[in-house]
Amino acid sequence: MRIALDAMGGDHGPIEIINGAIQAVEESDLTILLVGQKEMLEPLLAETSSKVRSRLEIIAASEVITMDESPATALRRKKDASIVVATRLVKEGKADALVSAGSTGAQMASSLLGLGRISGIDRPAIATIIPTPYGGKLLLDVGANSEAKPKNLLQFALMGSIYMERVLGIKNPRVGLMNIGEESTKGNELVLGAYGLLQESPINFIGNVEGRDFFNDSVDVIVCDGFVGNIVLKFGEGLVSALYSMVKEELKNSRLAQVGAFMATPALRGMAKRLDYAEYGGAPLLGVNGVSIICHGSSKAKAIKNALQVAHQSVEQKIIKAIQENIPGKDSVRNDD
Amino acid sequence: MRIALDAMGGDHGPIEIINGAIQAVEESDLTILLVGQKEMLEPLLAETSSKVRSRLEIIAASEVITMDESPATALRRKKDASIVVATRLVKEGKADALVSAGSTGAQMASSLLGLGRISGIDRPAIATIIPTPYGGKLLLDVGANSEAKPKNLLQFALMGSIYMERVLGIKNPRVGLMNIGEESTKGNELVLGAYGLLQESPINFIGNVEGRDFFNDSVDVIVCDGFVGNIVLKFGEGLVSALYSMVKEELKNSRLAQVGAFMATPALRGMAKRLDYAEYGGAPLLGVNGVSIICHGSSKAKAIKNALQVAHQSVEQKIIKAIQENIPGKDSVRNDD
Repeated sequence: MRIALDAMGGDHGPIEIINGAIQAVEESDLTILLVGQKEMLEPLLAETSSKVRSRLEIIAASEVITMDESPATALRRKKDASIVVATRLVKEGKADALVSAGSTGAQMASSLLGLGRISGIDRPAIATIIPTPYGGKLLLDVGANSEAKPKNLLQFALMGSIYMERVLGIKNPRVGLMNIGEESTKGNELVLGAYGLLQESPINFIGNVEGRDFFNDSVDVIVCDGFVGNIVLKFGEGLVSALYSMVKEELKNSRLAQVGAFMATPALRGMAKRLDYAEYGGAPLLGVNGVSIICHGSSKAKAIKNALQVAHQSVEQKIIKAIQENIPGKDSVRNDD
Repeated sequence: MRIALDAMGGDHGPIEIINGAIQAVEESDLTILLVGQKEMLEPLLAETSSKVRSRLEIIAASEVITMDESPATALRRKKDASIVVATRLVKEGKADALVSAGSTGAQMASSLLGLGRISGIDRPAIATIIPTPYGGKLLLDVGANSEAKPKNLLQFALMGSIYMERVLGIKNPRVGLMNIGEESTKGNELVLGAYGLLQESPINFIGNVEGRDFFNDSVDVIVCDGFVGNIVLKFGEGLVSALYSMVKEELKNSRLAQVGAFMATPALRGMAKRLDYAEYGGAPLLGVNGVSIICHGSSKAKAIKNALQVAHQSVEQKIIKAIQENIPGKDSVRNDD
């Protein structure tokens, strides 16, 4: 299997991306197409073994789209940007999937333009695993769209359910609708409309879930519009990282506490691992007609490696075909417009 | 000052409520009107000193609205419910404020019906302090409304700004609009509409903020609709309590880690205190024509005491009058309808 990896994206530059690719190649039979500026990437591969090197191909792309560029403008101007070239490799069948830690907006736009949508899907959604004490829960949409209609939420639920079952191995996943109360009469117009559609759908819909249900064993896939999902995601990331800083800060003031914390570290490492976003790798852009995995801009090698595994798994499990076959056709969906 | 306290509300029954009232009386010059079933409350006061007892009055209310009742139906049927009687005391000028840990829906409905809205406010909002490493930030609305219009968010911002300045002592508080990006072009129709109104308003509007901005020192008051706010609030509560359970769980398996954790405890207690919701007491229902403080159903004595202090502070700082004087009249608000 061949995966196109945008080697220029991400906050840490190509070095972490390349290291992630090397780890993935070592642990699997993947071939990685490193897309980017040849003169920059070549030296970073100098010390790899010939066995690894033979499954890392550099594909030239002279330009880079940065985080602060407008995706639409950048895509128009930079025809040879790494994300554009990586997407084209998938479109032309030269790669089976694409992975990037660059500008999410550019990757979404490039995937939509380059790969198109799966028939029957009106809008794609970004699906992210939220690590919790009860394993990862899939949250979508976390930001592909800032507005949604009930039928969009239905499509997100169908795609999320298929992804959770195929790629994360949860049989008949429980799908919940993010809301502010359990009762079916709760919530805004959007979720009230979606509730009925979800009830009639073939998925394992368990009804409304609340913010706290991320942290018990009641649900596997949580559906919301990208406005709510993005806020929850960033709030959670901020809270976890604030807690880490606070613990560090408090411990600084006490030698005794430092020794104590050191003694407790091995026990707490298991917990940190369970909550580590990087363990879950990238977030699929579900609904485009090809596997496109979005990584956090701050991804280091481990997160890139795991994102490549997510791509691997998505291709192996034929996630696109599974979505195509399980989404009602355009006509049956359009009637709730 | 006299505060009506719904002595029947809350998950822990009257005992925690009464203990909170006793603590508040001991620490301030408040008189508390304990509203509820006399025969249940009287014995709980048997052992209080006469000095404390003289500032605790029992006001009879024979009925209780439970958490699982429909607020509207319950209010119609139970004319002598503790929350109804407590609200009436405020309406009739026999109490200066009301505090309850009972059904939030019943308290909202009772406050709206009994006290009415402040002129110029179309919808009230529940404002909660979110504890963060940088002190408490005020988030509103966290669930009074599941839908909002841009003008509602403007009114929430004005009320939140006044509350933060008057009751929490933050001069000229920085007000942010909860969104999924910093740029003014980001977000859904609601926040795009609100952005313009906020820019033209007299408050210290700093623009859009994201979920992670709760955890830095960029903003004091964060405005959103009640759907988003309620989800964020419950997600945060769930995450913090899940982290506590996970730490406990992990430590159970290692004696060494337990000793270590014990040694680190004093240092971490400061952090736990900084993050403790109970430290911030209750959440005001802003926009009704009287001080109505909502407590978490799970409030224990300390949270009740702090909520009584919030009520105390709100009355002392004339929060209702301050809102009345700073909200543009109906006419000037209505034009964006």
